[in-house]
Amino acid sequence: MQQVRCEVRGVFVAINDAATVPVVVLTDRAGRRLPIFVGLWEAVSINSAQNKEVPPRPFTHDLFLDLMGKFAISVRQLDIDSVEEGVYYAHLVLSSGGRTEFLDCRPSDGIAVALRANAPVFVDEALLAAAGQEESISSMVEISAFLQK
Amino acid sequence: MQQVRCEVRGVFVAINDAATVPVVVLTDRAGRRLPIFVGLWEAVSINSAQNKEVPPRPFTHDLFLDLMGKFAISVRQLDIDSVEEGVYYAHLVLSSGGRTEFLDCRPSDGIAVALRANAPVFVDEALLAAAGQEESISSMVEISAFLQK
Repeated sequence: MQQVRCEVRGVFVAINDAATVPVVVLTDRAGRRLPIFVGLWEAVSINSAQNKEVPPRPFTHDLFLDLMGKFAISVRQLDIDSVEEGVYYAHLVLSSGGRTEFLDCRPSDGIAVALRANAPVFVDEALLAAAGQEESISSMVEISAFLQK
Repeated sequence: MQQVRCEVRGVFVAINDAATVPVVVLTDRAGRRLPIFVGLWEAVSINSAQNKEVPPRPFTHDLFLDLMGKFAISVRQLDIDSVEEGVYYAHLVLSSGGRTEFLDCRPSDGIAVALRANAPVFVDEALLAAAGQEESISSMVEISAFLQK
């Protein structure tokens, strides 16, 4: 199972006839894309971390980081490792005092936490290979622009 | 500074001419009420914990509890202890291996976490005394009913 390091390309809103859905787009070095549909609240939190914004009041993900800071827990990485019926599964790799723990999470929470912790995001090679590349980013609106409308 | 134990009376939506705002209502034994305005997402998460629902995918607050479980951190209590310009401030009292840590948080996050951890919620006596009792719960709709509309 090969893992590929990815970057968060951005948070978008995919608009089609059926719905308006927030999407986080991950990309690898080869330019392959993995779009993951997320909730609106999670999208806003990820976008806030991506832009290194300091919100007037913290998001729940900021509290998550505060908790880890208090107890000297660090984020080693996020692994996005499987998909079932369009739902992606992930886990955070955490460490504290030489112990390593794996925390199952939604990719959206994992990305929001990893970005805040400056921790790398890895995606299973098979997921990148299988992800359809047909969805064009050009049909998406950056969420910052969308929210300002 | 006297602390008064409170219960979560419920999560409501206050509807008036200006806005539709989610509210968590805390009550003490004497029946005094403290309404705290929260975000919609936080309201849904609190309501889910209050009703002991098992959501199809976990809320970020569930992940918070999972993290604490992995590292043997427990929630002793939530203290809601001050208000400034209508914004309430709170902290979670956490313990692990004999250590106690105080984690500043929004009341909404704190309540969502405390309910999931079956931990008590305390409110500063002065806040309960100062809270206007004029806002009638009868003008509010339970959020469960609101979301099903």
